[in-house]
Amino acid sequence: MDGALRYLETHRERFLTQLLAYLRIPSVSAQRDRHPDARRAAEFVRARLEEAGCAAGLFQGDGLPTVHGRCGEGAGRPTLLVYGHYDVQPPEPLELWTSPPFEPVVKEGEIRARGCADDKGPSLAMVFAAECWTKGAGGLPTNLRFIIEGEEESGGSVVQRYLEAHKETLAADALVIADTSGVAKGVPALVYGLRGILAAELLLTGPSRDLHSGGYGGTVANPATALGRLIGSLHDRRGTVAIEGFYGAVKPLEATERARLAKVPFVETAFLAETGSPSLFGEEGYTSTERETARPTCEINGLYGGYQGEGSKTIIPSRAGCKITCRLVPDQEPEAIGEALRLHMEKHLPPGVRMELRMGHGAPPVLTDPETRWAKLARGALEKAFGKPCALTRAGGSIPVVNLFQKLLGVQPLLIGTYAPGERAHSPNERYFVEDFYGAIRAGIHLFAGK
Amino acid sequence: MDGALRYLETHRERFLTQLLAYLRIPSVSAQRDRHPDARRAAEFVRARLEEAGCAAGLFQGDGLPTVHGRCGEGAGRPTLLVYGHYDVQPPEPLELWTSPPFEPVVKEGEIRARGCADDKGPSLAMVFAAECWTKGAGGLPTNLRFIIEGEEESGGSVVQRYLEAHKETLAADALVIADTSGVAKGVPALVYGLRGILAAELLLTGPSRDLHSGGYGGTVANPATALGRLIGSLHDRRGTVAIEGFYGAVKPLEATERARLAKVPFVETAFLAETGSPSLFGEEGYTSTERETARPTCEINGLYGGYQGEGSKTIIPSRAGCKITCRLVPDQEPEAIGEALRLHMEKHLPPGVRMELRMGHGAPPVLTDPETRWAKLARGALEKAFGKPCALTRAGGSIPVVNLFQKLLGVQPLLIGTYAPGERAHSPNERYFVEDFYGAIRAGIHLFAGK
Repeated sequence: MDGALRYLETHRERFLTQLLAYLRIPSVSAQRDRHPDARRAAEFVRARLEEAGCAAGLFQGDGLPTVHGRCGEGAGRPTLLVYGHYDVQPPEPLELWTSPPFEPVVKEGEIRARGCADDKGPSLAMVFAAECWTKGAGGLPTNLRFIIEGEEESGGSVVQRYLEAHKETLAADALVIADTSGVAKGVPALVYGLRGILAAELLLTGPSRDLHSGGYGGTVANPATALGRLIGSLHDRRGTVAIEGFYGAVKPLEATERARLAKVPFVETAFLAETGSPSLFGEEGYTSTERETARPTCEINGLYGGYQGEGSKTIIPSRAGCKITCRLVPDQEPEAIGEALRLHMEKHLPPGVRMELRMGHGAPPVLTDPETRWAKLARGALEKAFGKPCALTRAGGSIPVVNLFQKLLGVQPLLIGTYAPGERAHSPNERYFVEDFYGAIRAGIHLFAGK
Repeated sequence: MDGALRYLETHRERFLTQLLAYLRIPSVSAQRDRHPDARRAAEFVRARLEEAGCAAGLFQGDGLPTVHGRCGEGAGRPTLLVYGHYDVQPPEPLELWTSPPFEPVVKEGEIRARGCADDKGPSLAMVFAAECWTKGAGGLPTNLRFIIEGEEESGGSVVQRYLEAHKETLAADALVIADTSGVAKGVPALVYGLRGILAAELLLTGPSRDLHSGGYGGTVANPATALGRLIGSLHDRRGTVAIEGFYGAVKPLEATERARLAKVPFVETAFLAETGSPSLFGEEGYTSTERETARPTCEINGLYGGYQGEGSKTIIPSRAGCKITCRLVPDQEPEAIGEALRLHMEKHLPPGVRMELRMGHGAPPVLTDPETRWAKLARGALEKAFGKPCALTRAGGSIPVVNLFQKLLGVQPLLIGTYAPGERAHSPNERYFVEDFYGAIRAGIHLFAGK
């Protein structure tokens, strides 16, 4: 252990230099003309895995390759799977960046570049942690299997093909994912729950063409008005979802859970300043942290219909629609919630319009026990790495690949939150603190000790 | 009278040929690059007025000219103002036209071209009716003042300037406007009421940027959800407007009025086939004709917010808004209804979002007495011209210029509906029956008799 930590100290500069080189590769998976760059990023990761002493390769499929690596082979030792991704979100809108997204800048301890936090920095830190063991301490005390994919930001299936094809050789004691934030600067977290998701789109149609609102207004139902009524029926005034049966499968929050989430720092003024929202809002009887992570939602992501240009146009629109995503918590199932949504829409559909409800993607929620041996090991590793108590929290988002690992390999995910929140993932001026990078490497070193 | 009618019969072909020439001029006032064409159309109208024996000219202002003409000067005779417009709606979307919009086609008695019904055909018919008198019967029995403007479809103010500058010399007994439809093919109508209008735009804002619906969902109000609730509050389930005070100034429909409107033909199956709406819908206790013409409405003309593209995007939109137009009936005033709308919005605004309500244009409703001497003359003229009883109806739309004439000149409008409904004004494949053109000329001849 000491050797691994010393190795980190003597290679700090090179690790940072290599991260910056990695950040210079514009590996945007959603943009086809960036795919040669994405493949360069895959090769870059493979080379780092090999430097770390892993047997590494690229799994090719119908899309961008999944990089895999194995090291620390030895019988009778724990095995850890490490997941990350080398692809990044598109950098647009470019004009909002204070420096070019693929020309990383380091200033006052802060790296600014697309993908620095999501997920190049944290996932590369895991590879460097392995190197610290193999080159600084004579070898790894655990078996590691790396899976660094290239389609996390664009929804490809190559990683799924890889897992299906290799599930026998991927059996592991835990799955380490460094792709979430801690709860404050320098305060790491173990994220022991994720919300699930159900996406849907609702379309209401009335007349076969836009009608003049003078000549026809009053005689036929207006799809935009009907859409408003229907959206209005989804919640009560305080934000509680009003879909019948929506909360039926929701496990009540236990006292221990609430106590845990109550410890997650939440500063209202800072939150409002960051989001620009005029006030907090949400389900009564729950804290903001609970509302954000442990309670389900039904959000309208967008709505459309009729005339949207300047000024006015006197029409009854032919159609109006909206995008919906529900975030799910245990034990809500996407299929059952989709069915409840459909029944609700059918029941509340205003007269005079036709409805079409299309279901989109779905993923069940994830909730793991933060008190298992591996969870405790991860928490201890984070505490030692950051010198602060590790927070226990749940995240409001969904990471569908976690469901995939759980389903195919039955492995417990350890979502280690190693960077400061406010990283602006998916937004301009993505940020990553250099100290969080070294913290993540230290966390990897401690975690890979396996005890 | 006989001489005028005979003149029409001997000049049928030429009148049609001239209408087609007029339709070939793409006088789209809303499109600046069409303004030279619009000016050509103004010159065309001036030439026709001169051919009819009128002293004609162009009133120039800050926009497209208003064509004016005077004929039949004589003391002690009635004076009629005739209003029309030479500009037309933009023809787009061009791909939906079965023939080019400015290359008129006559097929099976039907003219197809932009502006044929709205308003080149009917207004030119009035000019030709004057010519029939001056050239076929030795002179006009009434004094006529023509005002044919060029900004009706684009909201200019030249005609207002003209009326303000000449109101002393424009005093008249009635105002003839041939710019509305009858109630069925071959069945003309006197339109004795118009609805008023109030336009507004509502914008709700929440967070200062789109937020991730995973990381933030449940903690802040969603402007799209709030917009739905607010739209849903505008009506009850049956379509009655739920804005407090909305109906306060509405005059109850009298029995005579209801009896009149009950005579307007309305065939549900034909109406549904034409509109494509799944069913009739509207305020309980009123017929479709009453809902369309004599009852006020509050329509959502368009709505927008968040992600509208393909698939889903997991955001809480920063803002959402909608366009609203209320159609007003006597004695609703646009200002008062705007105020009621604002109070309603403020009262029902869901928590956690900011509201901005911008008022747009407004016009009061128009209701005239269909039993005055001039209204009866117009009805008689229409009956003689079309050989069918003239329907009495109100129209659901708004014609702001009528308010202007009423306010500046205090003159009774006679809205003569001379063409078959379903003319597709403002839509592709605008239609006008050749027989309705001749019917309108005959109606003008009878009306200009002044008795």
